[in-house]
Amino acid sequence: MKGVLLGRTDARLVDVTHDFPRQDVRTTAFWLREVLPYFPPSVHLVVVDPGVGTTRDALVVRAGEHALVGPDNGVLLPAARRLAGAADGIEPFEIVVENPESHTFHGRDVFAPAAAAVHEAGPGQMATLDRLTPTEDVEDLRFPDPAIEARGATGEVLVIDGFGNVITNVPGSVLEGRFGETVSVNGESVSVARSYAGVGRENRLVTVGSHGKVELAVNRGRGDRAFDIEVGDGVDFVW
Amino acid sequence: MKGVLLGRTDARLVDVTHDFPRQDVRTTAFWLREVLPYFPPSVHLVVVDPGVGTTRDALVVRAGEHALVGPDNGVLLPAARRLAGAADGIEPFEIVVENPESHTFHGRDVFAPAAAAVHEAGPGQMATLDRLTPTEDVEDLRFPDPAIEARGATGEVLVIDGFGNVITNVPGSVLEGRFGETVSVNGESVSVARSYAGVGRENRLVTVGSHGKVELAVNRGRGDRAFDIEVGDGVDFVW
Amino acid sequence: MKGVLLGRTDARLVDVTHDFPRQDVRTTAFWLREVLPYFPPSVHLVVVDPGVGTTRDALVVRAGEHALVGPDNGVLLPAARRLAGAADGIEPFEIVVENPESHTFHGRDVFAPAAAAVHEAGPGQMATLDRLTPTEDVEDLRFPDPAIEARGATGEVLVIDGFGNVITNVPGSVLEGRFGETVSVNGESVSVARSYAGVGRENRLVTVGSHGKVELAVNRGRGDRAFDIEVGDGVDFVW
Repeated sequence: MKGVLLGRTDARLVDVTHDFPRQDVRTTAFWLREVLPYFPPSVHLVVVDPGVGTTRDALVVRAGEHALVGPDNGVLLPAARRLAGAADGIEPFEIVVENPESHTFHGRDVFAPAAAAVHEAGPGQMATLDRLTPTEDVEDLRFPDPAIEARGATGEVLVIDGFGNVITNVPGSVLEGRFGETVSVNGESVSVARSYAGVGRENRLVTVGSHGKVELAVNRGRGDRAFDIEVGDGVDFVW
Repeated sequence: MKGVLLGRTDARLVDVTHDFPRQDVRTTAFWLREVLPYFPPSVHLVVVDPGVGTTRDALVVRAGEHALVGPDNGVLLPAARRLAGAADGIEPFEIVVENPESHTFHGRDVFAPAAAAVHEAGPGQMATLDRLTPTEDVEDLRFPDPAIEARGATGEVLVIDGFGNVITNVPGSVLEGRFGETVSVNGESVSVARSYAGVGRENRLVTVGSHGKVELAVNRGRGDRAFDIEVGDGVDFVW
Repeated sequence: MKGVLLGRTDARLVDVTHDFPRQDVRTTAFWLREVLPYFPPSVHLVVVDPGVGTTRDALVVRAGEHALVGPDNGVLLPAARRLAGAADGIEPFEIVVENPESHTFHGRDVFAPAAAAVHEAGPGQMATLDRLTPTEDVEDLRFPDPAIEARGATGEVLVIDGFGNVITNVPGSVLEGRFGETVSVNGESVSVARSYAGVGRENRLVTVGSHGKVELAVNRGRGDRAFDIEVGDGVDFVW
């Protein structure tokens, strides 16, 4: 993919990460939504594509001054909505693939050429590109909303990061005024701390991660194991 | 190595990969041959070097408008031949290493300075560089040819990728007209599909990979385990 | 972090490594000391930060024409001393963090903006930057010195690399004149070789690594396992 890009554009190439869990559309979508807003306007090329070789479409999505390029499996949408903001909508285009059966690696053969073309034209000029055609029929992916009440919150595990930290969909704001106290997490009492180091080594804690969500963690350990919890599991907080 | 390069050239540095299996000359040679032709003319620096510290030579190989720099253990040759194409030959040079015993890390102390010098001079000017001397005595590495017959093909496993996909030396063209059917692989019947998703989850398949070779795989699983097969093992296909 | 940097500076971004062992300040400090002197003058941003979220300070350290940015946990100091050289001292500044409780990821929210500002101003102009204030109260980290005698040397394991090679604090110069012989290592006789390939496959050896220190290793195997040794353990050499 880098070779194809370097042959078609002088754009600066930046590796955002190679460490997303393989073929995990949901985790990738979450992190892209959290990470891409820190970038200046760019073309973001995403290849987490368990459906490669099926009839799933290839997409370019304009989101404000950014463009996202990748498979039509929902992975681009949460980030695109975040990048576009409230005022501006997102604008999806399908990449027209000629002779799709000859392309076994869409990252290299379809997405990279499209990303180079979009970079050269600029995100505002996508409608002028031959191989892009506007579409409205795109796979979506949305993260569930939590239920917040006076006496607690009910949420869900969105992702577990490489350190084993358990990221929920509950906004960190619910912990304001509770740091240094304990709360009930799925029936067990756990300390609320501003940072992992706020509890003893290998102790469990509830905190707010860099993404602004409530996180279940262990200081210098793995929260997923200590809380015995997986992606999609429910999490009940009682204050 | 990056520090040495940055101190000697303004060349753009591109990390092709850090994920080749350690000290595996054969797998690296295969992937370089498949990947480097997608790059525009460049200097390619390769450090997969289990013989570092022995008397093995250090090489620069000109291949068309590209140059490859690395150990004389065969790793550069398959890619060099592919990059040079049929018309143009490859041109190997030995890097003259002064006081070799003081250099424990050739990637940093020998290959990186040579790569910077070649980039600055340009691949066409290698013969003018002080520390490069033409050589014909280089270690070669060639991948075996398969036997293709009307009723089947006999090949060999060239490499197994990080997903467990088993890449053979049999050209993908033998599968034309067989997609959707089954073939016999080492005596067992397996579906032929255009993509991993063409069979049920965790089912085995025969397909054509991004490299154009016949691949043994499992949809969302590891082909090497399901086929119980290793690099160098024979693979018999019967149609 | 890359997004924040790209939005604030046109500096070339170079990934030195993503492979330091997680939260291991000591190993990171060792490798930075060995690696950064090969780079031309640069701003080096380091995020190995087990104390994130505590009251530990954030630092910028000027060292000659280089600057290092990262947590005040000692990780920057060995490299800074090496980069500064004997003549020139190092100059530490504390990064003034406004509203520190709102910053959960200092790499992104504190270090990256400071690194961009230092790059834009130039290392000689740090004293002019609003958010930097000179400090002398910094966490230090020093590696122990070995004892070298006529009949042997007593040292310590500084780090174990990703291949299992055991790096001691004993300078490689003690092995001059001993290559091809054997020495006693913690009471057992081991061959001294210029390179891993200087002994048979899976055999133990004593050698000098790219960092100039005495290393305990196994040809195509793991030295840490074969010598049953850990970071911080003593190593007795008898000639």
